[in-house]
Amino acid sequence: MTHTPIPLPDLTPPDILRCAYMELVVTDLAASRAFYVDVLGLVVTEESDTEIYLRTFEEFIHHNLVLRQGPVAAVASFAFRVRSPEDVDRAQAYYEAMGCRIERRPNGFVNGVGDSVRVEDPLGFPYEFFYAVDHVERLAWRYDLYGAGALVRLDHFNQVTPDVPRGLAYLEGLGFRVTEDIEDSDGVVYAAWVRRKPTVHDTALTGGNGPRMHHIAFATHEKHNIIHICDKLGALRQSDRIERGPGRHGVSNAFYLYLLDPDGHRVEIYTQDYYTGDPDNPVVRWDVHDNQRRDWWGNPVVPSWYTEASLVLDLDGNVQVVEVREEPTEMAVTVGADGFSYTRVGDTEKGFKLGNTL
Amino acid sequence: MTHTPIPLPDLTPPDILRCAYMELVVTDLAASRAFYVDVLGLVVTEESDTEIYLRTFEEFIHHNLVLRQGPVAAVASFAFRVRSPEDVDRAQAYYEAMGCRIERRPNGFVNGVGDSVRVEDPLGFPYEFFYAVDHVERLAWRYDLYGAGALVRLDHFNQVTPDVPRGLAYLEGLGFRVTEDIEDSDGVVYAAWVRRKPTVHDTALTGGNGPRMHHIAFATHEKHNIIHICDKLGALRQSDRIERGPGRHGVSNAFYLYLLDPDGHRVEIYTQDYYTGDPDNPVVRWDVHDNQRRDWWGNPVVPSWYTEASLVLDLDGNVQVVEVREEPTEMAVTVGADGFSYTRVGDTEKGFKLGNTL
Amino acid sequence: MTHTPIPLPDLTPPDILRCAYMELVVTDLAASRAFYVDVLGLVVTEESDTEIYLRTFEEFIHHNLVLRQGPVAAVASFAFRVRSPEDVDRAQAYYEAMGCRIERRPNGFVNGVGDSVRVEDPLGFPYEFFYAVDHVERLAWRYDLYGAGALVRLDHFNQVTPDVPRGLAYLEGLGFRVTEDIEDSDGVVYAAWVRRKPTVHDTALTGGNGPRMHHIAFATHEKHNIIHICDKLGALRQSDRIERGPGRHGVSNAFYLYLLDPDGHRVEIYTQDYYTGDPDNPVVRWDVHDNQRRDWWGNPVVPSWYTEASLVLDLDGNVQVVEVREEPTEMAVTVGADGFSYTRVGDTEKGFKLGNTL
Amino acid sequence: MTHTPIPLPDLTPPDILRCAYMELVVTDLAASRAFYVDVLGLVVTEESDTEIYLRTFEEFIHHNLVLRQGPVAAVASFAFRVRSPEDVDRAQAYYEAMGCRIERRPNGFVNGVGDSVRVEDPLGFPYEFFYAVDHVERLAWRYDLYGAGALVRLDHFNQVTPDVPRGLAYLEGLGFRVTEDIEDSDGVVYAAWVRRKPTVHDTALTGGNGPRMHHIAFATHEKHNIIHICDKLGALRQSDRIERGPGRHGVSNAFYLYLLDPDGHRVEIYTQDYYTGDPDNPVVRWDVHDNQRRDWWGNPVVPSWYTEASLVLDLDGNVQVVEVREEPTEMAVTVGADGFSYTRVGDTEKGFKLGNTL
Repeated sequence: MTHTPIPLPDLTPPDILRCAYMELVVTDLAASRAFYVDVLGLVVTEESDTEIYLRTFEEFIHHNLVLRQGPVAAVASFAFRVRSPEDVDRAQAYYEAMGCRIERRPNGFVNGVGDSVRVEDPLGFPYEFFYAVDHVERLAWRYDLYGAGALVRLDHFNQVTPDVPRGLAYLEGLGFRVTEDIEDSDGVVYAAWVRRKPTVHDTALTGGNGPRMHHIAFATHEKHNIIHICDKLGALRQSDRIERGPGRHGVSNAFYLYLLDPDGHRVEIYTQDYYTGDPDNPVVRWDVHDNQRRDWWGNPVVPSWYTEASLVLDLDGNVQVVEVREEPTEMAVTVGADGFSYTRVGDTEKGFKLGNTL
Repeated sequence: MTHTPIPLPDLTPPDILRCAYMELVVTDLAASRAFYVDVLGLVVTEESDTEIYLRTFEEFIHHNLVLRQGPVAAVASFAFRVRSPEDVDRAQAYYEAMGCRIERRPNGFVNGVGDSVRVEDPLGFPYEFFYAVDHVERLAWRYDLYGAGALVRLDHFNQVTPDVPRGLAYLEGLGFRVTEDIEDSDGVVYAAWVRRKPTVHDTALTGGNGPRMHHIAFATHEKHNIIHICDKLGALRQSDRIERGPGRHGVSNAFYLYLLDPDGHRVEIYTQDYYTGDPDNPVVRWDVHDNQRRDWWGNPVVPSWYTEASLVLDLDGNVQVVEVREEPTEMAVTVGADGFSYTRVGDTEKGFKLGNTL
Repeated sequence: MTHTPIPLPDLTPPDILRCAYMELVVTDLAASRAFYVDVLGLVVTEESDTEIYLRTFEEFIHHNLVLRQGPVAAVASFAFRVRSPEDVDRAQAYYEAMGCRIERRPNGFVNGVGDSVRVEDPLGFPYEFFYAVDHVERLAWRYDLYGAGALVRLDHFNQVTPDVPRGLAYLEGLGFRVTEDIEDSDGVVYAAWVRRKPTVHDTALTGGNGPRMHHIAFATHEKHNIIHICDKLGALRQSDRIERGPGRHGVSNAFYLYLLDPDGHRVEIYTQDYYTGDPDNPVVRWDVHDNQRRDWWGNPVVPSWYTEASLVLDLDGNVQVVEVREEPTEMAVTVGADGFSYTRVGDTEKGFKLGNTL
Repeated sequence: MTHTPIPLPDLTPPDILRCAYMELVVTDLAASRAFYVDVLGLVVTEESDTEIYLRTFEEFIHHNLVLRQGPVAAVASFAFRVRSPEDVDRAQAYYEAMGCRIERRPNGFVNGVGDSVRVEDPLGFPYEFFYAVDHVERLAWRYDLYGAGALVRLDHFNQVTPDVPRGLAYLEGLGFRVTEDIEDSDGVVYAAWVRRKPTVHDTALTGGNGPRMHHIAFATHEKHNIIHICDKLGALRQSDRIERGPGRHGVSNAFYLYLLDPDGHRVEIYTQDYYTGDPDNPVVRWDVHDNQRRDWWGNPVVPSWYTEASLVLDLDGNVQVVEVREEPTEMAVTVGADGFSYTRVGDTEKGFKLGNTL
């Protein structure tokens, strides 16, 4: 590894509550609206010709997703809510101490959010921290508005970065805790899941060319809600929006589905991971060759899921340069001629499944 | 097509109620028991060192599945229940008139079943017809015995035969009605679903080298029961028993999962098709190139699902010779270099999914 | 018993396929539309200022429910579909032979249905028999239209009549088969369930003052669909439409919910009974004192459920006179000072539940 | 109100993570085992002739419930886990400053737990605080062990106390935050829900004669798991263990069921409340006369649910004296001759439901 560690400031980091919203640049706002509103049923808090603010049914802050019309599909912000107004100051000081470019806006970068700081973080991601936010109606009890596949919470982000341990050290400094990871016996880390709120994650680092956004995930109450989303996409003859799943994750133990929006931004629908809030919460370490790590049922991971991801923007709105991962990729070491996966430790025979025949 | 049509007798066919049980020869009875009883949770009606009689939770006849220890994994009987004792006579007469070899046993071929006739049918399958049967406790209300993935009914059989229309004409003569099929614009029929009870099928004909048994299907009450079976297989590190799914069928509209038992016999777990009992029930015809026909979500069909199937036995217990299908195969016309599938009629672009990359 | 048995004609009865639709007179069509369409999500096939034709998602015939504006809330028709046009003739002859008033209309009584006969049956109910019907799109695959509580099939009717055995003998003559009943040790029959299609019932006879209509039942795919209907009614501040449930029936083993429409017509939402199509299907006989017979969880049956029901019309559209049941009522023998119910046979202690404290 | 406020110490309270376990004294350990293990399926961590240690499927600490054989059914401990060993010291200091009797045991009061302090709190409840605990296998992925009604987490406690605002002020001092409450227009508070982990509650105060324990609640993943528990109790002819529900709460928006164990200890099964972790999480205040507050579907609350609760023990193991609530009771103001409830604000008519007829 040639990367130098990210120097962590000797400052109190902001007290991050949770991942709160993502600002997504889309190239065809009407097409994106048809996907996020008409298909997925996210609730429109407000919208204009160039922006749509969306939230989930149990949310009480202004939005969990901003769609903004723009020239290049990319992520403009991974926004985290902090515990107090002072934590925005702490965030600013913390990133300034790391030498990062920051921008503070007392009136916020988007509607509904007040005093915020955006940063170009050491991994190249546009992180945002805010406390002040408009409250809107929590629609949790409004079952008259729920569709059969209702999205009730923003659950997490997932980011692609070349050097997972390096990124992880930075996030742990910021107060995140690891809940699970994927490793090999040589000590290569392929992915790690970190949390602030006591679920499996608020964000995750996936090893690959980055900085890129792997996916944003929304939660449903039950598994049948996710199945309905698939059924509905079939009915709309949009089944090709389904990239992977539905399935059960090994990592996180959640039930999942991955979709691709009209720009190729990946959206996960997710339900039923577990409580992780104790400080000694056991970290689950998965062997990269365990074929049940990413899908508990051993169903294959489609190659695009490993290779494709969304670009991210710097504070000027320009696309961040993508750096190549130098270590082995999870896809290479698990599928194809040079890779292997097992269902049971020690198994050597190849199976019959698609994943084995790629 | 060089096959001659099967001459249908000018006789009243037996009044078939439903598919009722399958007799399956397995090569390792203990391994099969571990799968069907310990994993799938079928109820043991009775068992010996060489045979196990299993039923579903809502069944009141002696069994829906017989596992019999034998030298070669194969199907010994596809057994249908008929409406009356006289219908066994009608079955015998009907098959004799077709020139088929038959065997009548007043005391039945297996425990729990009385007067039965087995035949080597014109397609080479060992069909059985019976009315007399021992009643056992219907465990429908015994929720204390239900596991999370409880199988509540035998739903259908599925048979592989080279010439689907030829087989279909024979089954229609026998009183079955078509509910759905898969065709192409040249009139090639790739598969057809036929029923007696008013569900989508009691059996289906799948075009391919035959006679072979494609699968036997059991029903659950809800979709989460099927998901639990997958989760349990993962927990047991037997996820490689999952061949395909879970998913939503286009054909039948049911939610499905395909498993392979220790001998490679395929078992489908199935739930929620629709009522078909009216004589003018609309037949649903699917284009073989419609990528949502077999999986409504467009997820790929694993090649083994098209190519592998179980051998069947003649009345002496010898394996029936498998005849090759002469017409195009569904796999060949839909995947790979020479095939194509669409999500929307007229689409030409290739997708990103595994099925497109085989 | 002073009732004389109903003389059964020595004629072949019509071959009834299934309960097919009900014509319901409602006093405020807009209010009924708000309930059946906006809340329950039934699909509108067609409508006018005075009539609305509704169907379920898996139906392919024109409608399962007709709402007709009228002066008095009542049932105008319990309509059954028969196997062939000739079965309409058979129905006519059969009821004429019983001395019933009949009306035959070659163009049907309602839109979408052709040649039909309506009768005033020996119990005073307006039964209808038809074969000819317009086909409409079966929306089974249209998940884009499904709400979270989608009703997928008409399941059954339920009728109130004073003398259950007398009514039962008539229905058995007509070809119905008993699947379950509620009795006491004195031989009093309180209710019986009868079927043509192989579910627990197409209609049921509930002992009480009649002829009246107890309820019409629609099926969902899963239990959570029924729960959603409750949740939605809560969100709309219409929870007082929920009369009883949700719960698990003892009889039928189905999951259920009873609602009252704006006129007080009772609607059941129902899912997951069992296959009953074999001629020797075991009849389940419940003791009237078994507290799990109507609710498997022992939850109390609200008194209105026993006492209230909808009036029915004769062929002139006049309300049929209601005759009083002479035998003991189920409510009287099971709750209150003179009644008793047990959870376990032999139990004598009173429980803590509401039902015990009425 | 004659109660004096509880003086809050000017000390840092312990940083409580979550409700962690309850120690329950039961009078027939075998009967309790049959209920908690055989019916509810809680996992046995260890057991002896006098104690059983039970946990949920997603738990990694030694237990969530201790059943201890004793002469009087009562609660010996409401145990909370704190963030660090030092927080046990803080807890001790905090209660000592309030003048409470405390007992510190470096080796814990029960197996699997280390250094703990138990207190007789100002409301008379035996609270316990600990950090040190044995880790055991988190069985979240062991679907082979899951029953159909698997309990996956301890969710909350519920305590009965005469003066809710007084108790609330004490709990807020201890660091709990209110999420919902039930009030009337005179300012009487009937119940309040408070949390440390970001769910609706870790404990709740229910107004009534106390100190008593109203219930302990375990979570399932989905609603059908709860329905299965009801179905299983029916199958075991133990439906009289079901006291109330299943239903949807207004408060918390969760799906619920209340059971009574062999000693009458109340157990709730609960699923799907919402995230409450933001400091400005909106508090939901319910009108006591709103008939959807406790059951969103307006189904009646059985009187025993209001009146019955479990005794609690002091640190010597003696039963705490129960003090009578002086303010109006929720039951009195909502049901019966002197109470009223509405479905819609302003409604005056009485409904047809059981709750109205008590």
